[in-house]
Amino acid sequence: MKYQTPKGTRDFLPEEMGLRRGVINTLVSMYGIYGFKEWDGPAFEYLDTLVGKSGESIANEIYTFKDKGGRNLGLRFELTTSLARIIAGNPQLKKPLRLFNIGKVWRYEQPQAGRFREFLQADTDIVGSTSMLCEVELLTMAAAALKKLKVSDSTILLNNRKILEAQLRSVNIKDDRKAGALRALDKLAKIGIGGVKREFESQGIPMEQFEELMKWVDIDGNNQLKLDRVGRLLTNDKVGMEGVEELRQITNLLTESSLGMPIQINFSLVRGLDYYTGPIYEIRSINQKELGSFAGGGRYDQLIQTLSGQATSAVGISFGIERLIEIIKKRKGYSDIISPMEVFIGYPNQDALPVAFIAAKMFREAGITTEIDLTGRSLGKQLAYASAINAKYSFIVFSAEEQKLKEMASQKEETMDVASAISEIVKKK
Amino acid sequence: MKYQTPKGTRDFLPEEMGLRRGVINTLVSMYGIYGFKEWDGPAFEYLDTLVGKSGESIANEIYTFKDKGGRNLGLRFELTTSLARIIAGNPQLKKPLRLFNIGKVWRYEQPQAGRFREFLQADTDIVGSTSMLCEVELLTMAAAALKKLKVSDSTILLNNRKILEAQLRSVNIKDDRKAGALRALDKLAKIGIGGVKREFESQGIPMEQFEELMKWVDIDGNNQLKLDRVGRLLTNDKVGMEGVEELRQITNLLTESSLGMPIQINFSLVRGLDYYTGPIYEIRSINQKELGSFAGGGRYDQLIQTLSGQATSAVGISFGIERLIEIIKKRKGYSDIISPMEVFIGYPNQDALPVAFIAAKMFREAGITTEIDLTGRSLGKQLAYASAINAKYSFIVFSAEEQKLKEMASQKEETMDVASAISEIVKKK
Repeated sequence: MKYQTPKGTRDFLPEEMGLRRGVINTLVSMYGIYGFKEWDGPAFEYLDTLVGKSGESIANEIYTFKDKGGRNLGLRFELTTSLARIIAGNPQLKKPLRLFNIGKVWRYEQPQAGRFREFLQADTDIVGSTSMLCEVELLTMAAAALKKLKVSDSTILLNNRKILEAQLRSVNIKDDRKAGALRALDKLAKIGIGGVKREFESQGIPMEQFEELMKWVDIDGNNQLKLDRVGRLLTNDKVGMEGVEELRQITNLLTESSLGMPIQINFSLVRGLDYYTGPIYEIRSINQKELGSFAGGGRYDQLIQTLSGQATSAVGISFGIERLIEIIKKRKGYSDIISPMEVFIGYPNQDALPVAFIAAKMFREAGITTEIDLTGRSLGKQLAYASAINAKYSFIVFSAEEQKLKEMASQKEETMDVASAISEIVKKK
Repeated sequence: MKYQTPKGTRDFLPEEMGLRRGVINTLVSMYGIYGFKEWDGPAFEYLDTLVGKSGESIANEIYTFKDKGGRNLGLRFELTTSLARIIAGNPQLKKPLRLFNIGKVWRYEQPQAGRFREFLQADTDIVGSTSMLCEVELLTMAAAALKKLKVSDSTILLNNRKILEAQLRSVNIKDDRKAGALRALDKLAKIGIGGVKREFESQGIPMEQFEELMKWVDIDGNNQLKLDRVGRLLTNDKVGMEGVEELRQITNLLTESSLGMPIQINFSLVRGLDYYTGPIYEIRSINQKELGSFAGGGRYDQLIQTLSGQATSAVGISFGIERLIEIIKKRKGYSDIISPMEVFIGYPNQDALPVAFIAAKMFREAGITTEIDLTGRSLGKQLAYASAINAKYSFIVFSAEEQKLKEMASQKEETMDVASAISEIVKKK
């Protein structure tokens, strides 16, 4: 146990962390370009705040403790609860608000492949607008971020809670069976039609209802056709028709060509038994289906109201960074999102150190990533180290009068001073 | 309590968080330029790991809890313990290692002005080199980061544990009184000479020893003179002379002109009763003395050994981000480190929305920070909002045929298409 992390948690060594930082920086920069502003909250909340909203099933997964005043606290298990608390507690904030946060969350789950007790979430939310343009903005931004990370071999799946509910109504599934039916439907991609059927059976839902429902889910064709057909079936269900109209607005603006990736209406998408009230969506990898979805979200127009009493619409999308990183690791040449080491500065003896140190300062002031030898080992060993860390260049300081720039890949070297080396490197960037 | 954060913790709303993100990005970018690589560890550790190293005084400040397996855990109260555990547990990592981490830590302290129970630390460390060039690198990087943040009105104070110990030996303070004497001396800047004298009295240390010690502390003059005088007094103390030699190496390379800020040897600097074994340093604001130090660190050559049994030298510097931000907030025009909003896209009616949406996509693909109206409110209200969020430009989409770029400060507007607007904005950046 001596050097171990607590069960279900991990250390990140520099190589792994370089990739994580690359992903985080890409997301933060894309969030910025789309006009989203950052918020942050504490790692723990009052237990009441966490449990009140989520109910008992999640309560078992919260790390709880007391502070010295005997207050019950818990580590946050998602970011949305804290965001909803902040919005409810700060009515002075002008809406609509575009917000993002990237932070760690904790859940007492059974650790398994790709599932940890401490993991990173990246959330973006728009608060205070009922416009479907919110959904459009979030999905466009997510697609742009994935393009930047070169994982565009993904599909956006889209559904609407209002349509799901209308479907359950139309096949006459009783109110007390609805949650069970949705939970079963949510597993379709994992357990197949046979599996869903068995779930319906075990919950005592009549088979005619199962078969009726599957006809809805199975509607084929492109997004417009799907919406047309469901629209015809739901003509008399006002809420259901609202859902159809919402998806029509979204898919009118979001085409495959505007996103750079497919968007598919999928009437079996449920997204757990969460707080969603309108459109819901997930992003799945096409070539790594086994990883499931790595991003998802939806509209939650009632969550903030349960905290504040004040009706406040909200819509969000969340990246599961851990899965996203798993996907990135499987693409070739992913090191393009890791900051490279540009220059290693070597010197043959201590007499050259003051000049080498000034050279390092000049490279760095020019914004060039630079490392200087700290060991006083032989110049040969210094250069072997420069190769090992994949430095693009070595700059060797023999004396105040003589310095050389060496390109590590080609092993080409040329005598030149710091200023010339800097302009050479900047030119080739 | 409904919307509150747990006692001693804070929410960060977008305006505040923009500044924090600006500071974090500046530090991360400067760490990168200096060749430091990021690591990360979990928010909590086994309680044994945390307490083992730090002893009882800190143990009272740790948030502790058990996991479901009954294991004793604690939220980390600093980053260095986790780093030492990682280094001890990963002997395969090639040294010297340049590492950094920016993360939250938690302490059960009495909340007071500028002191919180959850706060952010930014640590950089070099592991596996005894060279004083490590100290030189860390202090140069810290000064460069402060220059970038425009808080160069600071002083670096420098001392060495080896000299402090030699001083205590030379005035014959007994071993069991040393910790108390150092603790008293550490408060000199806060409580003055009279205060330190009273502390010595209350600890029963003879007054002759206090007066002897103060003569050392009081040595005046520039750094070279100070080292010369202390060197003469310590000639027969081998360890003390090592300390003098170490500071000589550091101050030979680090001059006021190379740092862009003063560096002062100060023989009363102690830095708590921590694990330091060699040079120690602090950075203090010149114009905001009341805030005390906002960065500090030193060499800790024995900490990793206590965990691994393997002698491993290490040296670090840590920024207290909370105090650093307090200092930045008091300088005029600090908004220069916050990312600005560049373009707001407005449109007079829903017919113009699809064109406006494509325009937004084009600005964003050009890397321009862009917000599009989500409300469908009147164009006048949209432009008032653009002013309120300090957007530099508005781009108004009347139709596919007619668009205008408006510079918000001058209210100057001109009819032009998206491509022209992008090149206009990029040109003026």
